Amino acid sequence: MTGPATAIWHDVQRIRAEAPLVHNITNYVVMNTTANALLAAGASPVMAHAIEEVEEMVGLARALVINIGTLSAGWIESMVRASREARRRGVPIILDPVGSGATRLRTATVERLLAEAPPTIIRGNASEIRSLVHDERATRGVDSTHDPEDAVAAARALAARCGCVVSVSGATDVIVSGDAVIRIRNGHPWMPRVTGMGCTATAITGAFAAVNPSPLRAAAHAMALNGIVGEMAAERSQGPGTFQAAFLDALFLVEEDDIERRLRMEEA
Amino acid sequence: MTGPATAIWHDVQRIRAEAPLVHNITNYVVMNTTANALLAAGASPVMAHAIEEVEEMVGLARALVINIGTLSAGWIESMVRASREARRRGVPIILDPVGSGATRLRTATVERLLAEAPPTIIRGNASEIRSLVHDERATRGVDSTHDPEDAVAAARALAARCGCVVSVSGATDVIVSGDAVIRIRNGHPWMPRVTGMGCTATAITGAFAAVNPSPLRAAAHAMALNGIVGEMAAERSQGPGTFQAAFLDALFLVEEDDIERRLRMEEA
Amino acid sequence: MTGPATAIWHDVQRIRAEAPLVHNITNYVVMNTTANALLAAGASPVMAHAIEEVEEMVGLARALVINIGTLSAGWIESMVRASREARRRGVPIILDPVGSGATRLRTATVERLLAEAPPTIIRGNASEIRSLVHDERATRGVDSTHDPEDAVAAARALAARCGCVVSVSGATDVIVSGDAVIRIRNGHPWMPRVTGMGCTATAITGAFAAVNPSPLRAAAHAMALNGIVGEMAAERSQGPGTFQAAFLDALFLVEEDDIERRLRMEEA
Repeated sequence: MTGPATAIWHDVQRIRAEAPLVHNITNYVVMNTTANALLAAGASPVMAHAIEEVEEMVGLARALVINIGTLSAGWIESMVRASREARRRGVPIILDPVGSGATRLRTATVERLLAEAPPTIIRGNASEIRSLVHDERATRGVDSTHDPEDAVAAARALAARCGCVVSVSGATDVIVSGDAVIRIRNGHPWMPRVTGMGCTATAITGAFAAVNPSPLRAAAHAMALNGIVGEMAAERSQGPGTFQAAFLDALFLVEEDDIERRLRMEEA
Repeated sequence: MTGPATAIWHDVQRIRAEAPLVHNITNYVVMNTTANALLAAGASPVMAHAIEEVEEMVGLARALVINIGTLSAGWIESMVRASREARRRGVPIILDPVGSGATRLRTATVERLLAEAPPTIIRGNASEIRSLVHDERATRGVDSTHDPEDAVAAARALAARCGCVVSVSGATDVIVSGDAVIRIRNGHPWMPRVTGMGCTATAITGAFAAVNPSPLRAAAHAMALNGIVGEMAAERSQGPGTFQAAFLDALFLVEEDDIERRLRMEEA
Repeated sequence: MTGPATAIWHDVQRIRAEAPLVHNITNYVVMNTTANALLAAGASPVMAHAIEEVEEMVGLARALVINIGTLSAGWIESMVRASREARRRGVPIILDPVGSGATRLRTATVERLLAEAPPTIIRGNASEIRSLVHDERATRGVDSTHDPEDAVAAARALAARCGCVVSVSGATDVIVSGDAVIRIRNGHPWMPRVTGMGCTATAITGAFAAVNPSPLRAAAHAMALNGIVGEMAAERSQGPGTFQAAFLDALFLVEEDDIERRLRMEEA
């Protein structure tokens, strides 16, 4: 049995070799940066949101990424329709519930997607995940945003509710599927100072889900690579501006040895 | 009494410490770059335009930034509704009338916003400000675009008409409130060669308005910081492409001493 | 008679001196990057898509760029209306049929534009161009995507069908007008690893069409400059992330000597 770094590297190589098409219905803020991250990773991004074409585009794709960061009514219908088609075809769906809990529209949209076309993987931050957990025992605590074990509790509850993998980003990333929990401690403090780094992690999760049949592994490998590449980028930049370009360079250039040397992943 | 550099630095520190939420309804071109500028400055940006959620989002925000750069009918309604809610709650509104005067839709949209929910600060370039001044004595002169004193005349007229602060960017920035006029001579010639640097100045004005109760001071401090950071960025870049990343780095890294040493602000 | 490098340089100088307004109705992914490319080249970009203002904006512009990368119904109507007005006024239209052939909506939208308001220049990749050619003899061959002579055949067929110039990007760029064929072998392998580099080539073609009355020359000069600037940028960057900023710097800084030394253009 190979180690986790080798398994991540195996997925990276498959993405680079196969250039899987990842269909994104995402927010205006990050369309450019997530497309570039997918390209740098070796995948083929497409952005398409028109109700007339989303099902056809899903039919060409190997993963569907849904991100609700700049919602409006027409887009919600496209997200639902694309997600249904993805389920029908067995295309993995990665949902980023950006801002869930902040407004009723966002929370209600995620709830609708969970009800009508549940995703394969939900990837968000701790407060977004918590907003989707109805079991209040899993969401108590004012300071819980900063305790990874509270994120684990919320992720477990949401994973149980939805029957999907839940991937929570934070200083420690937490990925949960049923009883399995993976914790990842890679990354850099500048990452939350760059808009859309969470959305990038979601898009990269789509690329991994396109080549790895295990949603738990795909989600964990994506978060690990994202954090490792962030560390590499921080070493080559002076602040959050130069970091962005360095992140794409590192995603394009990352080698097995970088992963082996830097990976801080624990499975429980 | 402290000097102007100290006062600017005080606001910068408050933004970094408090990370105020700035709600943006802005154009597609600059959503990514203005979100990144707000993050680099220490603020918390959110982009949300859906008619169903703008009022709720305004309720969470400490400033509302409205930018008409890529208008369409649905967005105009959201801008009006968000602005009304911001006035009701006392949240400062910063309006960037991008392209006002170029098409009737843009001019009419700004006029509607001025009539239905006047902003706290209007921030634009000289020709946009001039398009909103009905007193023709304030707008004469073909070459007036390049004379800061013509910008002062137009800004005074608009400030009087709207009862708001008017902030005009140019080689000399001019900020007017009633009889007060502040002139700032910071900046770099590459800034107009980067798309959305004006929109970035507007977003940064939102961050300052969130922490400084004086709209005149907030607007002036924002323009000064923007120009100073632009000078710092130009020293670390080779052209307008590398300038963009260097601008974000400098916004993240700027210290009191940089402001003290570079500030070229005059109050009359 | 001057050589081709001199002719390209002549256009570059005109763009820098005249700063022609280029009106873009383009996709969300590339709005920021194509605006920056136009600015770095010396042109004046404007993005405007509202049905209420596109005709007025076309009236101010010297070129209209239509790009269907993130279509939806309302935008299609604006594209048709703007294109009709551009034809009425003699403003050159550059059409980028992004994803034509991938979904019916995209192919049908391009067909509608070709029927109702034919462009001056169509600029796409080989598979997009091929999707628009009804003569199947010009589109045979599974591997044809990689053979520039197949791109020539498809471009000839589309140019004949539409009576326009066809500009096909690839390792060898091919520009066709009637019987004239220009081949350009500039560029760098990282360019397809950056999102929207094709869209940037289209926008830059708009800037050249604004100053050069020959659509064939405008299209060829734009592709040559784009490839040359890409080579310059690759020499100053470490991967596709840093490449993007270096591309804008090089577009801003390129001199006649760079063009003279690097140009690989053949006319047949």
